[in-house]
Amino acid sequence: MQRHTGRDMWDMDECQSPRMGSVILGVDGGASNTVCVCIPAAMPFNDPLPVLARTVAGCSNQNSVGEDRARETLERVMSQALLKARRRRSNVCAVCLAVAGVNHPIDQQRMLDWLREIFPSHVKLFVENDAVAALASGTMGKLHGCVLIAGTGTIAYGFTSDGREARAAGAGPVLGDWGSGYGISAQAMTAVVRAYDGRGPETVLTNNILDFLGLASPDELIGWTYEDQSWARIADLLPVVVESAESGDEVANKILHNSVGELASSVKAVVQRLELGGEDGKHPFPLVMVGKVLEANKRWDIGKEVIDCVTKNYPGAYPIHPKVEPAVGAALLAWNAIASELDGDIRNVQ
Amino acid sequence: MQRHTGRDMWDMDECQSPRMGSVILGVDGGASNTVCVCIPAAMPFNDPLPVLARTVAGCSNQNSVGEDRARETLERVMSQALLKARRRRSNVCAVCLAVAGVNHPIDQQRMLDWLREIFPSHVKLFVENDAVAALASGTMGKLHGCVLIAGTGTIAYGFTSDGREARAAGAGPVLGDWGSGYGISAQAMTAVVRAYDGRGPETVLTNNILDFLGLASPDELIGWTYEDQSWARIADLLPVVVESAESGDEVANKILHNSVGELASSVKAVVQRLELGGEDGKHPFPLVMVGKVLEANKRWDIGKEVIDCVTKNYPGAYPIHPKVEPAVGAALLAWNAIASELDGDIRNVQ
Repeated sequence: MQRHTGRDMWDMDECQSPRMGSVILGVDGGASNTVCVCIPAAMPFNDPLPVLARTVAGCSNQNSVGEDRARETLERVMSQALLKARRRRSNVCAVCLAVAGVNHPIDQQRMLDWLREIFPSHVKLFVENDAVAALASGTMGKLHGCVLIAGTGTIAYGFTSDGREARAAGAGPVLGDWGSGYGISAQAMTAVVRAYDGRGPETVLTNNILDFLGLASPDELIGWTYEDQSWARIADLLPVVVESAESGDEVANKILHNSVGELASSVKAVVQRLELGGEDGKHPFPLVMVGKVLEANKRWDIGKEVIDCVTKNYPGAYPIHPKVEPAVGAALLAWNAIASELDGDIRNVQ
Repeated sequence: MQRHTGRDMWDMDECQSPRMGSVILGVDGGASNTVCVCIPAAMPFNDPLPVLARTVAGCSNQNSVGEDRARETLERVMSQALLKARRRRSNVCAVCLAVAGVNHPIDQQRMLDWLREIFPSHVKLFVENDAVAALASGTMGKLHGCVLIAGTGTIAYGFTSDGREARAAGAGPVLGDWGSGYGISAQAMTAVVRAYDGRGPETVLTNNILDFLGLASPDELIGWTYEDQSWARIADLLPVVVESAESGDEVANKILHNSVGELASSVKAVVQRLELGGEDGKHPFPLVMVGKVLEANKRWDIGKEVIDCVTKNYPGAYPIHPKVEPAVGAALLAWNAIASELDGDIRNVQ
């Protein structure tokens, strides 16, 4: 495959279709891939949202692939989305990049700087952590409330209406994200080893996990984990743990209950720091739930248990399961910011 | 540096000093380096043991460096020990390799096969897991009792007099070796993140760990762990955790108490499976304690707490803190096996 420089990509784009109206680009750069959507800037939105184009590329976390490759991936996914939507760069009125690995204002500024090299000064630019897009995917782009993401990893992220933000967890397996898919699976494998050693109770997790992995003995689990310690590979055991809990296994049930406690505690830490529930803790706020750990299973619904646990302290928390993906959340975030600005302008004129 | 093939090394050796008596080679191949000692085969031994030569080389765990390099390292460290002791290969009457990564009879047989290519058939050869050498280092080479190793990782390994063996833990961080130096340090770092998030109690671990690592904020811990996830690097925080506990910090004390429980539970699992304490649990057996986690600190003595915990169930357990290193344990193991054989021969003659 030929590698395009940033300039090539965008020049190629500019000789495409004629101007057909303003658009917004939303990008979600996660741990394994990068998704870009192109939506019309016109409002109000219909349901379902009119996504003009959607493109996918590899990882754009600069901590994983380096800054140059991250930038190239982000440029490519955006230019291809415009191409597919038959729009030109001059049609773009706003861009929101929500990328994993953006944790500091320095990261943010660096990305804003090179985005500005591509898009002229009237284009609104936003750079955020990918958790922010997940929140926006549940709130139609409004940055208010708390999002809980629990997939391979887990993080809770919250915003107040006046722009304060807070996060909890999201620190990775070494630093104890035990409520995540990785955390649940690692605890389940540990329980198998403990039962085998005679250090813990017997559990159906032993047979179920060995069957799932095609291993003959718990001894072989050690070799299996050393082979490749990727978190996603370990987190793939999640359905086996849920199934074991649903069959009544006490060890598996205890692991899932712990996970609920951990996830709820991340949410409560964010809500408390931001006082999202107001002084009496009863004010309403959105709690956006994202990721495979929180999706409903047959009887064991981790997401529902987490919500029950949070609403005991914060009865105003209203759960939202987003109907759109985080890339659309990123686009909505940009759309919402433009709309707020227009509102402000109108108010200022009045 | 010139690389020698196996044959070169040993030929070079054979043109050295004249025959000066039989010797035994003991090799301890751990996670980071390989130590070989050469001791006289004559008995009884004096205290301190007369180590004729000691040589050190890199890692010889074949899971980490591959079989060829592991073999080359082991050959080099042995040939250099003989050279230094001014002995020839024909002086060797027994060799014991105790190497990390030897977990299956297949690994054992493969190493015995190539050792036999070097040493003629009258030389006694032994290949064991490195935990076995640690046990032997406390029992003058007798394989009876239980060893607890708690350094960067942790494992409990036991033998009965009639040759049965059992192990517990030793499965690595993913599979929950929480009593180890890595486990203690990872829990301490997790406690710092939880306190910072508002998910856990305040702790002096925050200031102490940040100072030790030269970081300004708990935020930076995430980046620090992602930079390099080597277990040893994380386990190096152990003294900071012990110091924090000794200063009265509740969080650090709880982590160390958990570690004691984990380590004692590994020992008890092995002792129970092998019935080392006999039917009433009161029979005497050696409990060999090895590794930096078990070494005495000022007030907080993890090793002593583990012993107290084990002896509540097994009052016959008598702790041994080896005075010699595991490589000497490996040599003693070979020495002991030869001595037992001679005893047998004498009894058979009588």
